[in-house]
Amino acid sequence: MNYPNGIKKKITKIIDYKNRGMSLENYINDSNTYYLEKDIAVIHKKPTPIQVVNVEYPAKNKTKITEAFFKKPSTTDYNGIYKGKYIDFEAKETKSKTSFCLNNIHDHQLEHLKKVMEHGGIAFLIIEFIALNEIYLLLGIDLFNILENSHSKSISIETIRVKGHILKYGYCPRLDYLKIVDQIMEVSHEKNMEKNKNISIKNG
Amino acid sequence: MNYPNGIKKKITKIIDYKNRGMSLENYINDSNTYYLEKDIAVIHKKPTPIQVVNVEYPAKNKTKITEAFFKKPSTTDYNGIYKGKYIDFEAKETKSKTSFCLNNIHDHQLEHLKKVMEHGGIAFLIIEFIALNEIYLLLGIDLFNILENSHSKSISIETIRVKGHILKYGYCPRLDYLKIVDQIMEVSHEKNMEKNKNISIKNG
Repeated sequence: MNYPNGIKKKITKIIDYKNRGMSLENYINDSNTYYLEKDIAVIHKKPTPIQVVNVEYPAKNKTKITEAFFKKPSTTDYNGIYKGKYIDFEAKETKSKTSFCLNNIHDHQLEHLKKVMEHGGIAFLIIEFIALNEIYLLLGIDLFNILENSHSKSISIETIRVKGHILKYGYCPRLDYLKIVDQIMEVSHEKNMEKNKNISIKNG
Repeated sequence: MNYPNGIKKKITKIIDYKNRGMSLENYINDSNTYYLEKDIAVIHKKPTPIQVVNVEYPAKNKTKITEAFFKKPSTTDYNGIYKGKYIDFEAKETKSKTSFCLNNIHDHQLEHLKKVMEHGGIAFLIIEFIALNEIYLLLGIDLFNILENSHSKSISIETIRVKGHILKYGYCPRLDYLKIVDQIMEVSHEKNMEKNKNISIKNG
């Protein structure tokens, strides 16, 4: 459309980083590559566990798997190191607009996350509500608090909005989940400082 | 054999924990299970990376992989958390009696170990000399020191005996490699204490 005096309407390009058919897994893998290249963190996705039953050797130094099955994972999908801290998480998508069903996560994966927390690591879930275009990071401690106070097999979106931390779709990295981890580490550091201050006030 | 006066020769049972056909991988997996059950550490072997090419669905909820290939691993085999510290290592067996050839380890695995160290994790190799019945833990820092001062593609057993830490075959756990990690953490803690002491002497 041409405006008078050659004025053209400025077209504002709204970049919608989502709805490009990219899966949550790709978002996280892309972010991990970014973190690795920028020397920010070393976090990798673990390979999918597969039970190999039969193999063939079609050529020298070549092994072809001809029969195999997917196994249930015994741990989470992602782990690594960030600022000296052990990081461990599982990522899940849901089509639901109302809640995240825990059937999506195996019991031993939950146990694993709990163990990681007990040993001083940072454990969390990343949950994407595809239909809502919303992604949340839910800390292990908050996840287990919710589970202890509920008999339901699912967590409502309202609860996740309150207890979780929203993750914005971005470009570099695509999903800056370590920014949230930073905030968590800062809060926990401040709490420790406060505790130490109180101890020295009592002792002084 | 009967000795006079009913004295029987005492048979000393020498338990050789090795030579039972157990691979180094099994030794480490067994130890990791022990660490996990005793709540000492959370360390797992990563699944072998496999590229799936074709699958079939012989029954509902059943997926059969009919064509797949082994991929080169981009990281190490083992990682996890111990006393709040990120642990990362690769385990290798060699039949050689004289040296450990670095062709056994991919370049990106070495790069990965270096990155882990730079980010504050504890990185190492566990090397078994099968013919010698000897297993060593070689710390990342020592490994890279050796590599920097050598143009050889292999490390002699003499060097490994000096720079590495010997791991004894045991029963529970079968290979107590975290005992060595403890010693390393202790030494590094003492060094830090010493450094802090020197700083306060200077400042005082």
